[in-house]
Amino acid sequence: MLAQDTIAAIATAPGLAALSIVRVSGPEACPIASTCFSGQSLETAASHTAHVGMWESPEGSRIDQVVVTVFRKPRTATGEDVVEITCHGGDYVAALVLQSLVDQGARLAQPGEFTQRAFLAGKMDLAQAEAVADLIHASSEQAHRVSLAAYEGHYSEGLEALRTAILELCALAELEIDFTDEDVEFADRTTLRNLIENALGQVQELLESTRLGTVVREGVRVVIAGRPNAGKSTLLNSLSGRDRAIVSEEPGTTRDVLEVDAEFGGLRFRFMDTAGLRKSTDSIEQEGVLRAYRMINKADIVVYVYDLVCGLLEEDQTALNSLDNMPVVLVGNKADLVPKRKRKGLQLAAIDGPKAVEPLVHALLEQATKSYGNADASRTVINARHKTHLKNAHQALLDARVALNANQPPDIFSLDLRAAARELGMITGVITNETVLGTIFSRFCIGK
Amino acid sequence: MLAQDTIAAIATAPGLAALSIVRVSGPEACPIASTCFSGQSLETAASHTAHVGMWESPEGSRIDQVVVTVFRKPRTATGEDVVEITCHGGDYVAALVLQSLVDQGARLAQPGEFTQRAFLAGKMDLAQAEAVADLIHASSEQAHRVSLAAYEGHYSEGLEALRTAILELCALAELEIDFTDEDVEFADRTTLRNLIENALGQVQELLESTRLGTVVREGVRVVIAGRPNAGKSTLLNSLSGRDRAIVSEEPGTTRDVLEVDAEFGGLRFRFMDTAGLRKSTDSIEQEGVLRAYRMINKADIVVYVYDLVCGLLEEDQTALNSLDNMPVVLVGNKADLVPKRKRKGLQLAAIDGPKAVEPLVHALLEQATKSYGNADASRTVINARHKTHLKNAHQALLDARVALNANQPPDIFSLDLRAAARELGMITGVITNETVLGTIFSRFCIGK
Repeated sequence: MLAQDTIAAIATAPGLAALSIVRVSGPEACPIASTCFSGQSLETAASHTAHVGMWESPEGSRIDQVVVTVFRKPRTATGEDVVEITCHGGDYVAALVLQSLVDQGARLAQPGEFTQRAFLAGKMDLAQAEAVADLIHASSEQAHRVSLAAYEGHYSEGLEALRTAILELCALAELEIDFTDEDVEFADRTTLRNLIENALGQVQELLESTRLGTVVREGVRVVIAGRPNAGKSTLLNSLSGRDRAIVSEEPGTTRDVLEVDAEFGGLRFRFMDTAGLRKSTDSIEQEGVLRAYRMINKADIVVYVYDLVCGLLEEDQTALNSLDNMPVVLVGNKADLVPKRKRKGLQLAAIDGPKAVEPLVHALLEQATKSYGNADASRTVINARHKTHLKNAHQALLDARVALNANQPPDIFSLDLRAAARELGMITGVITNETVLGTIFSRFCIGK
Repeated sequence: MLAQDTIAAIATAPGLAALSIVRVSGPEACPIASTCFSGQSLETAASHTAHVGMWESPEGSRIDQVVVTVFRKPRTATGEDVVEITCHGGDYVAALVLQSLVDQGARLAQPGEFTQRAFLAGKMDLAQAEAVADLIHASSEQAHRVSLAAYEGHYSEGLEALRTAILELCALAELEIDFTDEDVEFADRTTLRNLIENALGQVQELLESTRLGTVVREGVRVVIAGRPNAGKSTLLNSLSGRDRAIVSEEPGTTRDVLEVDAEFGGLRFRFMDTAGLRKSTDSIEQEGVLRAYRMINKADIVVYVYDLVCGLLEEDQTALNSLDNMPVVLVGNKADLVPKRKRKGLQLAAIDGPKAVEPLVHALLEQATKSYGNADASRTVINARHKTHLKNAHQALLDARVALNANQPPDIFSLDLRAAARELGMITGVITNETVLGTIFSRFCIGK
């Protein structure tokens, strides 16, 4: 299963920084890196040693002063020889280093190819490999906890235990197939029923965690909606503490959807300011309203803003009714312009800045916690592929239960049980194939 | 001059990637890192060796599996003990690693503090230290060439040679001060005059390179301007090859300034789409127009777009006249709507996409090359601080020339010459002070 060619990629994020790393893995990693490196010969260098020297292109033009670290197989991330070149940051120098490696015979790595090689070398199972990507995407304490647990294999352990239990009972039930005429039961029906109920419960729980998983991975998407001139852009600016959107007293100022990220209480929020919701004959504004509705449909929470001066109009009520399947936080804005009295929702004056919108921040945190709770790190699914397999496993277990309750012969429900086990095995990669692997790793970033 | 405390920072760019590096430098680097690392003891580890293990917070919660590389002084980037922790990418994990180091007694590094320590340890001169930042910012072949030459010290060598020559003649001239009554000339006046002319020429040349330097460092700022509805947003979308801006037939669609980066012919361009230039009673549009003019004032090139259907109107002409100090590329847009005939500027149909705007790309490349030429790498100034010192040196040399030509006594013009030498010395850091250093390194990114 081990690859024959040598791959290379930039492993650090693009952008301005002190350092970047270019990584090479494969049988020719050391000889290829050696040809570009003016320091000590890397071919004779000991494993896990670092060397300082000048990096040069094959034509001999100087690229950068670098530190090269050599890792000899098998004690490496990919199980192959690995060379890491730490050069100055910024994108240009790293790109030149990478190009020189390619010029010397390395191949540009496909997305996720380093991790794929680690998987193929048996360094980790598939769910662990996927957790690498989630660990990288982690942007909150919750996300880090969930993905590190998966990376360390705790999530896989749970699935494997479940899969093994299913397969064992399955094997017992299948023994009966050879003795169908004799009406024996090697697999106790009550135990089987309990197993299926238990498995269904576990899979169900994992499936329910997927909604949380998405929020953990991508942050809470908060769309700011409302009629024109309710003060949505002012609210966005106050939430983000910067002058992101042009605001004016004229209704319909915002057209393009503006996005701002902010972190509150350890959770990441992505705020989106949208065009005011109204029927408009203005075609640009129409396009803006269309984009606003598209955003609302993908929101985790909608902040619906109305103008306290006009009050909650019929148009607002209609819009709110159309949102009744979504978590909505209602905000009455421009509290500075009206006498204080009982109104629907939070009352605030967005124009007064970050301090003035704190009640909204609290409400959002409360709503997010209510909707997404606190995750059990090793039992939270943040991967869409896993969700699909869990759904399939769930259906197979339901089918098995129906067959068992209808006293069907074991060859019927054992097929369902095997299907469920197979789906669980595809999550950890015990069962897999090249197409599946290709699809999984192609979603990784290059260099991982 | 060596620091007593231990500093730490994330050295790689923020964002999603396979790997990040957290760097620690100072006397306690190894002991501090050791307390968080479950692998081999780093205190006894040999220099330039890498170690795999689990990184944990002081409370013992697991953060990530990492590779730790130990560099022992004095053969390190800063001249101090350095430890680099390579962890998974993304911002969250690296932030946790950094926090654990701080919890164990490291101090968050100030911007540029690693490089400052390298300078203080005599690892590089000041211009070389500053070139590190420019190397990181390099985003084109030219920028890389210029900053690597400076990083390797070629630029400093030229300045030092000039400074030494000035100081030597200065010393000769000053000998005369003790013999003013005797009317002797140790410093030959023709040689002095030639030296000053030569120095003026060199400093002048360096000063002229600063305009190029800015473009090399920051990319060519191209502002797309013109009357409303000339098709500026369509042009931006076609130049960038993506649907960045809302376009419509209604004049005045764009309000916020939209920016897109693109690279053509090895040069980086930053395109800015602006609100259409017209007198408007609409206060939002007014704000947009105001922002447009602000952008135009900072542009390297203005692409002025007019509508071929209406032709070049008086308003266009007025706007163009106001741009007559700037490089302007005139574009007649909507060529698809009018019969082809002789008109001012390039004629194209931006709506037809990237292919249709290629003539404009060629014109921009030509204009950029004409304005900024090809740099001699070791004689291009891309640093604003250097520009200030060069200007001061230039003025001092001019003063010296005046004094010399007026046959002033040597104590007059030697002061000017010493001032010029001092300014040059401040570029390389031969002459410096803590305030200057603080200012310089505070502009670096953190982690460098």
